[in-house]
Amino acid sequence: MQFEGKVGKIAVIQLGNPSPGCNNVVDGMLKYQYQNKGVSLIGFKEGTKGIIENNVINITEESYAPYRNLGGTDYLGLSDSRLQSNLWDTLTERVHEHNITGMILIGATHTLTDGARLTNHFLDKGIKCDVVVVPATLDGNIRHRFIQTPLGFDTASKVYSQLIGNMLTDSASAIKYWYFIRLMGKDPSHLALECALKTHPNMVVISEECAFRGENLPDIVNRIADVVEERANQGKNFGTVLIPEGLLAHLSAYRHLINELNDLFKHCGSSHERQQLAKNLASDFTYIKDNLSPWSFSLFATLPEFMKIQLINEQEISGSVNLSQLETEKLISYFVQIELKRRKNAGTYKGSFAPVTHFFGYQGRCAHPSAFDCNLGSTLGFAGCALLQAGLTGQAVSVKELTNVPSKWRVGGVPILALLRSQPKSGYQRNELVVPSQEISMTDMPYQVFKANERDWKFVDHYCNPGPVQYADFGTNDISNTMEELYLVETDIADQIKGLCNSI
Amino acid sequence: MQFEGKVGKIAVIQLGNPSPGCNNVVDGMLKYQYQNKGVSLIGFKEGTKGIIENNVINITEESYAPYRNLGGTDYLGLSDSRLQSNLWDTLTERVHEHNITGMILIGATHTLTDGARLTNHFLDKGIKCDVVVVPATLDGNIRHRFIQTPLGFDTASKVYSQLIGNMLTDSASAIKYWYFIRLMGKDPSHLALECALKTHPNMVVISEECAFRGENLPDIVNRIADVVEERANQGKNFGTVLIPEGLLAHLSAYRHLINELNDLFKHCGSSHERQQLAKNLASDFTYIKDNLSPWSFSLFATLPEFMKIQLINEQEISGSVNLSQLETEKLISYFVQIELKRRKNAGTYKGSFAPVTHFFGYQGRCAHPSAFDCNLGSTLGFAGCALLQAGLTGQAVSVKELTNVPSKWRVGGVPILALLRSQPKSGYQRNELVVPSQEISMTDMPYQVFKANERDWKFVDHYCNPGPVQYADFGTNDISNTMEELYLVETDIADQIKGLCNSI
Repeated sequence: MQFEGKVGKIAVIQLGNPSPGCNNVVDGMLKYQYQNKGVSLIGFKEGTKGIIENNVINITEESYAPYRNLGGTDYLGLSDSRLQSNLWDTLTERVHEHNITGMILIGATHTLTDGARLTNHFLDKGIKCDVVVVPATLDGNIRHRFIQTPLGFDTASKVYSQLIGNMLTDSASAIKYWYFIRLMGKDPSHLALECALKTHPNMVVISEECAFRGENLPDIVNRIADVVEERANQGKNFGTVLIPEGLLAHLSAYRHLINELNDLFKHCGSSHERQQLAKNLASDFTYIKDNLSPWSFSLFATLPEFMKIQLINEQEISGSVNLSQLETEKLISYFVQIELKRRKNAGTYKGSFAPVTHFFGYQGRCAHPSAFDCNLGSTLGFAGCALLQAGLTGQAVSVKELTNVPSKWRVGGVPILALLRSQPKSGYQRNELVVPSQEISMTDMPYQVFKANERDWKFVDHYCNPGPVQYADFGTNDISNTMEELYLVETDIADQIKGLCNSI
Repeated sequence: MQFEGKVGKIAVIQLGNPSPGCNNVVDGMLKYQYQNKGVSLIGFKEGTKGIIENNVINITEESYAPYRNLGGTDYLGLSDSRLQSNLWDTLTERVHEHNITGMILIGATHTLTDGARLTNHFLDKGIKCDVVVVPATLDGNIRHRFIQTPLGFDTASKVYSQLIGNMLTDSASAIKYWYFIRLMGKDPSHLALECALKTHPNMVVISEECAFRGENLPDIVNRIADVVEERANQGKNFGTVLIPEGLLAHLSAYRHLINELNDLFKHCGSSHERQQLAKNLASDFTYIKDNLSPWSFSLFATLPEFMKIQLINEQEISGSVNLSQLETEKLISYFVQIELKRRKNAGTYKGSFAPVTHFFGYQGRCAHPSAFDCNLGSTLGFAGCALLQAGLTGQAVSVKELTNVPSKWRVGGVPILALLRSQPKSGYQRNELVVPSQEISMTDMPYQVFKANERDWKFVDHYCNPGPVQYADFGTNDISNTMEELYLVETDIADQIKGLCNSI
């Protein structure tokens, strides 16, 4: 494919967390360059750090080849700091110095937001550098009629499902453990839902559903205890529960507690002050009482020691609570254990309960990408270059018809403007425009498929163990259930009424 | 292959923990039956429970087919209680009732020991039932000139290496975390060593080496802190350390503490007494002081709260410390953090340190077996039947030349007698004969290969990410590095001196 476009220099930068397939964005860029000789490619090393330190590499086939189709983001490197207004002037210098005509930003919702703002700034100041964003995050939270799936979700869900599948087989083999598995995925529960559709665990907690129902932790603990009790009555003292890492942030009492703690630490000027505050909170009961609201204090007081420590320590290290460091799975298994003890004393529960907890997260961020994500990464990189060379800016790269074979995928761009929503800015009066994280809606097809099976999975065991990702002969073109439910069905329906449509 | 043998009924029973490939032992038995029509096959369900409850299934191609080549032990089920003398009379009844002429026990070292004792009992009492044991454990601790590897080690090491590889790529991508990864594998460090040879992490702690050197935890913590400091000097504030789950049991101070706690709980008659004791230990400082030796008490006092709780809680649940429930990786990262803080204050260390801990264990026990373990499981099952039908008893099934393609493997039996060693029996004066768990010796080739690379891996990054197990086209016939170093080299050497040998 030959595009008519200007001769230019395209710079790529990786922002945010690692997501499988990101290495292949560079592969797509190189393929574009191969067909469009006028284009040259550079990369900022280690994200925003590369901008600040002017650390730029020439992207060449020779230096890139060892990274093709592999996991990680170690070819470009990354930083987790955002490309915000404080860096615009430095970036403008780099644009002029290196004659950059277009930029590809790889990242998630924050990067889409920052990409829109950067485009606006460049247009405002008359800086001739176009900007496109490649949506990449294993959290799966960029998903709507404009963009079918972000890069990396497919691989991460497959790696976690492999592990969850092994745990399900294990629980059915050892028949004595209840496994509480927390999954990465930030606020939304997309990964937990997709993994549930792949593996059929006995329970999966959907954060969005809990928030929708206005549940709090005791409700969830009770629901789990009910299933443990019912299965024990059937003679099955084993099972598996999936828990998304964003759960606590969806329960209003915990959200308030976390926010209050965040606010306390926000006023610390230095890491030394944070240390002192953490020390006070950890050692002095009345200090906590005086500094939290009565309801948050009473919640805090009910927490087991390890969770108190995690809530405070995380603040000390990073200045805010990092969801992936809160062992929600341990907290829930702890409360379920207490509830079952109560039921045992009351005589209603007679089973045995041996919980084992797990967190599947970091293992999936840098897994080798599935065939799907290899193809998607390359396609996004190629399309990103094509959009830039066509003179477009402020675009998110979009690949559609992904349930089809890659040769039939449709490629294009979406103005990020179409994705922006107005949201309250924390601590300020004015709203701000951001690209929101897409959460699960109660009308989503993947969620509804789960609901149709939920009761069955609880009591009749339908465990699936999909095994490891395969690269040859079979399984390589599998798409995620989420994609299938969301997009394949629509095609089916279109097919069903094709005759009708044609006859009009 | 047609074996001349008696017509008989063979019963199989799965003992011990799940290990990948165990399902395929039944596949091998069915293949044997297909070629030897006189043989019938039954299985005791859920290990020793099936003996007690007389829960026996007819093994048929139809019922078994859905389990072929898959992970888990859910076709037969298992129990973790041993087949010991208290069950001999019941088992004898079952032997007579079902006309069982031969038994295949699937399990690890305990099962080999129990198999030898059972054979002895049957021979003693003139009960005409032969016994063979299929050595299966992912711990890899049945390995000597008689048996090259137990079933499951290959798969487990590949699954853990996939995850460790992802973590290494992650650490090189995110460049801000130190990953402390604990690996399953009970007392010996075979799995940690094999995974290190596959993935090249910055450090791997070998329990046997620590014991050999007489190291204690501060020595290990210091060694790790040295590497963290040196890498920080190179500008690399990231890295990965592998820790075998059996580490604490190899450090004399911790071994004493664990033994003393075990002894305390051993005297509890009921679970209620254990609960009371755990409560006293957890709440009453002087109670611990009075009940532990002064040195164990002073060690206990230095431990962080979570480790104290784990040491006591585990006792409450299972009556002895379960290594897989002690978060050694957290303990070490906790002490490394303290040591680095000390060095920072002293001005020698200037880096940043963000540790994240992991435990890779249960995820690997029921993984789908690698092509190697599929073949090995089937071969062991087939050979087990052949040994029984040849009228042999008290044998461990042995497959050799495993570094070759499966069609060239050599199959046979080893009298378990040859594997028994005399060991002190805990709490008694007399020694007893047991099949010991094979630990890593300082002269083992795999260990020496690691030592030759150790320094290099610490400071120059040679991370390998082997990716998921593949079943088609490539990678399917990979053998473990441990096997390669142990056995392939010997063949090489034999080849090198073949001329010399022939000329003698």
